[in-house]
Amino acid sequence: MTTIDTGRTLVADGALRARAEAVVPGGVYGHLRVTADRGMPPSYPQFFARGSGARLWDVDGNEYVDLMCAFGPMVAGYANPVVDAAARAQLALGDALTGPGEKYVEYAERLVGTVAHADWAMFAKNGTDATSMSVVIARAATGRTKLLKAEKAYHGANPWFTPSTAGVVGSDRADIVEFDYDDLASLERAAASVEGDVAAIVVTPFRHDGFVDQHFPSAEFARGVRALADRTGAALILDEVRTTFRVDLAGAWERFGVRPDLTAMSKALANGHALSAVVGVDSLREAAASIFVTGSFWMAGVPFAAAIATLDWMVQTDGLTRMLDAGQVLRDGLQAQASAHGLGVVQTGPTSMPFLRFEDEPRLETAIAFTDAAARRGVLVHPWHNMFVSAAHTPEDIATVLERTDEAFAEVARSR
Amino acid sequence: MTTIDTGRTLVADGALRARAEAVVPGGVYGHLRVTADRGMPPSYPQFFARGSGARLWDVDGNEYVDLMCAFGPMVAGYANPVVDAAARAQLALGDALTGPGEKYVEYAERLVGTVAHADWAMFAKNGTDATSMSVVIARAATGRTKLLKAEKAYHGANPWFTPSTAGVVGSDRADIVEFDYDDLASLERAAASVEGDVAAIVVTPFRHDGFVDQHFPSAEFARGVRALADRTGAALILDEVRTTFRVDLAGAWERFGVRPDLTAMSKALANGHALSAVVGVDSLREAAASIFVTGSFWMAGVPFAAAIATLDWMVQTDGLTRMLDAGQVLRDGLQAQASAHGLGVVQTGPTSMPFLRFEDEPRLETAIAFTDAAARRGVLVHPWHNMFVSAAHTPEDIATVLERTDEAFAEVARSR
Repeated sequence: MTTIDTGRTLVADGALRARAEAVVPGGVYGHLRVTADRGMPPSYPQFFARGSGARLWDVDGNEYVDLMCAFGPMVAGYANPVVDAAARAQLALGDALTGPGEKYVEYAERLVGTVAHADWAMFAKNGTDATSMSVVIARAATGRTKLLKAEKAYHGANPWFTPSTAGVVGSDRADIVEFDYDDLASLERAAASVEGDVAAIVVTPFRHDGFVDQHFPSAEFARGVRALADRTGAALILDEVRTTFRVDLAGAWERFGVRPDLTAMSKALANGHALSAVVGVDSLREAAASIFVTGSFWMAGVPFAAAIATLDWMVQTDGLTRMLDAGQVLRDGLQAQASAHGLGVVQTGPTSMPFLRFEDEPRLETAIAFTDAAARRGVLVHPWHNMFVSAAHTPEDIATVLERTDEAFAEVARSR
Repeated sequence: MTTIDTGRTLVADGALRARAEAVVPGGVYGHLRVTADRGMPPSYPQFFARGSGARLWDVDGNEYVDLMCAFGPMVAGYANPVVDAAARAQLALGDALTGPGEKYVEYAERLVGTVAHADWAMFAKNGTDATSMSVVIARAATGRTKLLKAEKAYHGANPWFTPSTAGVVGSDRADIVEFDYDDLASLERAAASVEGDVAAIVVTPFRHDGFVDQHFPSAEFARGVRALADRTGAALILDEVRTTFRVDLAGAWERFGVRPDLTAMSKALANGHALSAVVGVDSLREAAASIFVTGSFWMAGVPFAAAIATLDWMVQTDGLTRMLDAGQVLRDGLQAQASAHGLGVVQTGPTSMPFLRFEDEPRLETAIAFTDAAARRGVLVHPWHNMFVSAAHTPEDIATVLERTDEAFAEVARSR
């Protein structure tokens, strides 16, 4: 790999990695871990000092235009002044109190008014809480046990779903039956294998598994899932944790005319403040009220205040359209640049959640080299996870990205 | 029940309850739900507007001295200026970014330096995350499946542990074996019933189940749990989610000279900001690094900044001693008042987590009437859940509580 001296150093970053390694197993865990065994290049920073708009600064003071958006939570810009003013005002009044406040109710009303199928909402902290609660609600409603999910689909970090099986035991997944995404015959076979006992079908609105091209299912598949759920009396759970506010505020399968029974939401809801939600239809209201779910911080006021401000800001600034447009300019620019440098790339997914891979490279060498070259020039991309564009990515931010990626592609092309 | 006109109204509260009922199943769920079917009297507010120190104001403007502390998270006072200044400063820099910041590392170092057995720390959002992660770590380390827990003990709101079984299926609890708390023979029998397959024993430092007297186990039991874990190679998980910072900062079983392998912490860690932690011993470090756990907001900076400030404040102000002392004054005062009014009460648990019940009343009529009479006079207590004292409860706050509870006891005595 050819490298260039960009004058950037990661000295403070290295020191923090060493300190972290001493007091946290593996240093950093989960999706934010930046190590070679996860395909991340050495110039990619692990620790960040601050953010503003679409810009991030690492702990060594290097500036980046960020195309990861904290892996989704950032949708209105880091330190968005409107959202954070709302958070600060609520913090002065109180966050976790001995009961909820008015903003909890107001936000439930707002989500019910935003998501097309939603008659009610419940809130938690993690996306995993939302997907797990959805399954429990479906089981309470149906009195059944089995959950159908797509093979390799990630629906959260509890033992039901994790990609790693370390510490996972047989009972954790005993009631899960897998099908192939966007393959209605496979789904029908899965349902038939546990006929009469399907509590729920959980599905993401499009396939956004790591390493592989993102893929929107056919309308036939989406409608077939709905029809199967209706026929069998199972609940259809749409896992929009990652796609929240990045495809369609009313619901990602509105394009197909398909409405789920339950939607799990999180990530972008409150622009980074910890919040997740389950929204559902009236027929599941009683079941939802019957389950026991709670968390010490689930009714805290600050995330609701931030979430209301985020939703307002997204609607008032037409944030989703601007985000999709910015992503389209980015995609078109990347495609032209790669082509000009003789590199074959495949870009998939909505333009708000770009995934770029280099053709014919199962071991990701070029993707890693490109990620490295981009990071050294102040652009954060990812070699195998979808990226995220936000409504804070201005035309100037995208232009800056494209200036830098052009150089990064050139470097990668030279080294081949 | 005799009632008095205290001039308090819950008009705005009632309006919010109606609005909540329309858009959230059951209106409010979990431990913060205030309804008659949970034994809560009609004068108890459901919705709060703000907090300061040990005081809360409901949405109708009524002021209370709060003995619930948001069910534990509040330990340094609502809107503690030191903690919230740290939170605001971090918010201006950034909360959820594309990687953690220095405060994540600093706080891990601080916890390792605070909890006696801790060689490392991991962080999440919910107490449930921490107990569940602990079990997964134990299973990864041992390659075994079974979890021993005390009957009726609450360790979080996932399907493994919830008190309600709505939506819970057989596989959720297939690998859990129960024993009687503080009964070593029962624990030994539970272990023997799944000999060779015990991954972990999970236990709270004292019994703090709802409705019943709180109970510290014998030193013999605590040491017996440790010995059984050592003999069988199981991990000992101490669930300190509720007791965090309210018994002993170094660990609640330090009094017995017993150190667990893993401790689950949450609630008071960041004075209300969403944070939980697992701390563990070196021998489990590799297993902890091997499991896949993550959450979109787990590395966010604001809760770490708040947690560091909370721990500093607790240490610098000797907060735990002050809290235990304030609770002792409260306990002594309540006992004398009840006695003077001819009411038999039993108070149990550490004085930082008081539980008060009236003798010989399985249906809690007097407890509910007392909760009602106290609420109407501006004191929040609870008829069947342990209460919480904080380090922000000043001698004046406790004196105010006792003035009001004396009247409340008198009202209850008159109505008998």
